[in-house]
Amino acid sequence: MTETPIPDFASGGGLLPAIAQDAENGQVLMLAWMNEEAWRETLSSGRAVYFSRSRNRLWRKGEESGHVQTVVEIRVDCDADTILLRVHQQGAACHEGYATCFFRKVEDAGGRTQIVEPLLKDPAEIYDR
Amino acid sequence: MTETPIPDFASGGGLLPAIAQDAENGQVLMLAWMNEEAWRETLSSGRAVYFSRSRNRLWRKGEESGHVQTVVEIRVDCDADTILLRVHQQGAACHEGYATCFFRKVEDAGGRTQIVEPLLKDPAEIYDR
Repeated sequence: MTETPIPDFASGGGLLPAIAQDAENGQVLMLAWMNEEAWRETLSSGRAVYFSRSRNRLWRKGEESGHVQTVVEIRVDCDADTILLRVHQQGAACHEGYATCFFRKVEDAGGRTQIVEPLLKDPAEIYDR
Repeated sequence: MTETPIPDFASGGGLLPAIAQDAENGQVLMLAWMNEEAWRETLSSGRAVYFSRSRNRLWRKGEESGHVQTVVEIRVDCDADTILLRVHQQGAACHEGYATCFFRKVEDAGGRTQIVEPLLKDPAEIYDR
């Protein structure tokens, strides 16, 4: 056991970026934000809890969609200002229905993108159940 | 080819988080920040260029350490506010000499961590060549 008891939330003005990675296939699923409360609930509940900047409240991932993330492992980076969650993802990580939020690939030096991932879920069905 | 020509840097106050992932083994290496200039130079040069918030200038990853990141693929997320670089990493991504900056694993619900990755490089040798 070592130095840092918790990530340095003060360094990020109370919010730190948290990366979710699929523990099974290594796919980077999304990036969201955590405050200390989200961090503590993630640790105690074993499910990913973020802080929604747009809604200005805790966001228990999957609370509306059912697409919860069960935490397999948590890593903290060298500067203790970024969190990496390795998770088991239920359903689709992305609210647009893709397995990963990173479904757009940059195709040229102008930065134009193309969708390169299959749609797993109809977004209308995710949120209108 | 679709919608977003470049990530929405304005949404992040000029800076967006950029995740670097090892294209060979899927390991998440680090998170850094990009402004539009860093983004454009990354696209044109084929090497990861970030914006260093501490030095307040462009940071061509590896410029001091030699540990450059050659870009294999770039993804942009659903909200166009996070960038994912899949890279070929030369040497060690972390300035502390580990392959990944996420070398600390959270070991208990109190958030205590343990180093779980091998040290690849002596940090003193990385920066005193």
